[in-house]
Amino acid sequence: MTVHFKKTAIIGVGLIGGSLAMNIRSKGLSDVISGIGRGVQNLELAKRTGVVDTITLDLAEGVKGADLVVVAVPVQQIAPAIMKALPYLKPPAIITDVGSVKKAVIDAVEPRLPKGIHFVPGHPIAGTENSGVEAAFRNLFVGKVSILTPTQKTAKDALNIVKALWEEAGAKVVAMDAVEHDRILAAISHLPHMVAYSLVNAIADAGAKTIDLLKYSGGGFRDLTRIASSSPEMWTDICALNKVNIVDTLDRFQRRLDVLKRQIAGDDFKALKADFERAKGVRDSLPVVKKFTPK
Amino acid sequence: MTVHFKKTAIIGVGLIGGSLAMNIRSKGLSDVISGIGRGVQNLELAKRTGVVDTITLDLAEGVKGADLVVVAVPVQQIAPAIMKALPYLKPPAIITDVGSVKKAVIDAVEPRLPKGIHFVPGHPIAGTENSGVEAAFRNLFVGKVSILTPTQKTAKDALNIVKALWEEAGAKVVAMDAVEHDRILAAISHLPHMVAYSLVNAIADAGAKTIDLLKYSGGGFRDLTRIASSSPEMWTDICALNKVNIVDTLDRFQRRLDVLKRQIAGDDFKALKADFERAKGVRDSLPVVKKFTPK
Repeated sequence: MTVHFKKTAIIGVGLIGGSLAMNIRSKGLSDVISGIGRGVQNLELAKRTGVVDTITLDLAEGVKGADLVVVAVPVQQIAPAIMKALPYLKPPAIITDVGSVKKAVIDAVEPRLPKGIHFVPGHPIAGTENSGVEAAFRNLFVGKVSILTPTQKTAKDALNIVKALWEEAGAKVVAMDAVEHDRILAAISHLPHMVAYSLVNAIADAGAKTIDLLKYSGGGFRDLTRIASSSPEMWTDICALNKVNIVDTLDRFQRRLDVLKRQIAGDDFKALKADFERAKGVRDSLPVVKKFTPK
Repeated sequence: MTVHFKKTAIIGVGLIGGSLAMNIRSKGLSDVISGIGRGVQNLELAKRTGVVDTITLDLAEGVKGADLVVVAVPVQQIAPAIMKALPYLKPPAIITDVGSVKKAVIDAVEPRLPKGIHFVPGHPIAGTENSGVEAAFRNLFVGKVSILTPTQKTAKDALNIVKALWEEAGAKVVAMDAVEHDRILAAISHLPHMVAYSLVNAIADAGAKTIDLLKYSGGGFRDLTRIASSSPEMWTDICALNKVNIVDTLDRFQRRLDVLKRQIAGDDFKALKADFERAKGVRDSLPVVKKFTPK
């Protein structure tokens, strides 16, 4: 399926929005790409580097007449941005988003969609700890999964168009229920971020000398805490919108830590080793994924 | 300072022992290098690839006449290996180790050292999740820190020789009290490993579908859990020997998780964001944080 748009509006030209815009442009999928943001500097960089054709801080102006709107702002701002855009869109415009939490966004948006305007909720599982359009690169989605969480109200045609868009960007598209998405993502993405942030803070609690030694430490700590450099604003938003699932998954993780601590304190090293072996088995079973770096 | 040995015995020709042997050989620091192990296959690979000159499963035979003994076995086996070696060493032989826990090893070894035989406790902070001599490489220690934890009984000359040995391998040598070493390493190395193992197990607890999606997941989870592929035997050993410090640091980490969970459950997103920002600040302050800049 080939897709083509007259005007694509990217609300939030950051790592994800910018990388998708680069794909749309390089494949010629849109006559024009409009970049909408809240920071002039980032937008000007986006225009200067050819990521988008036009830039504006005014959402209404930016989305006017767009037949595709991609909302790539922090999750708590997705529904408000869509609400602001709706009066300026005409059928059969398609809105899609890239938020890490889906159910709350769908609940806020779907009841207020005018007839003929489509919303296809999406979430590409891709990203780095860096943000802003300067971190964007065309191959970000190659070999990654992009999840779509259509509802009973999602039009088949609109769904297929957004699916084709992500496939053009090199992603494998997986459809999933929004509730299930939020539960699984809490485990595989939100929990690791909570852990990385907490680990760095716990080590900072241990004092300056410990932090000092970190500077010479091996790759283990570095890799483990890389994602603690992620955007605090974005992650606060995700916590707010996926609260119950994140608290659940934190509980599950803490129970695991309790078990491990009891094993160590109680000299149950046989059980401890068995649990380490179980974890190693799961981790070793993950296929090696080639890292795409910008060229 | 230049160092030279007639015979270097490497007990445990794995990632660390093998990489150090490669350095000793390439710089011509020893007339002969004897490799001692418990697995014929690994030893034969070490000999075939020129990491060591001679190989044996018999510790006594392997260390006989050595003026340098490097003990690079899992930490619980370090003191027993040294005890076995002592009858076959002559003054002024130097024994050093590479264990991740220092106080327990020193306490077991020092009281039983014959006059003129020196023990210099050491710990290079280097490693990967891989093990065995096939994972060894000469540059493993370049730019890394190698910690030495001399006691009041450690002879200055022996200390300087081991220091020079690590500097020849490209490491920066830091001297530190053993108790302090064990406390700091619990925070920056042992805790991250406990976290990585527990995280993988917590996610495995969430069920097959979650594990399945992991296979498509981005770099965050992969990086965070890479060290969960580390040797279960080695890490069980470390837990046994650094029990109190590891339990302490787990407690500190769990308190951090409790705070975070309370913030999320209680909608205290201002405090949550401030803690994320604190962690990001510490993490960003570590040198060699790679940033993607597309061209």
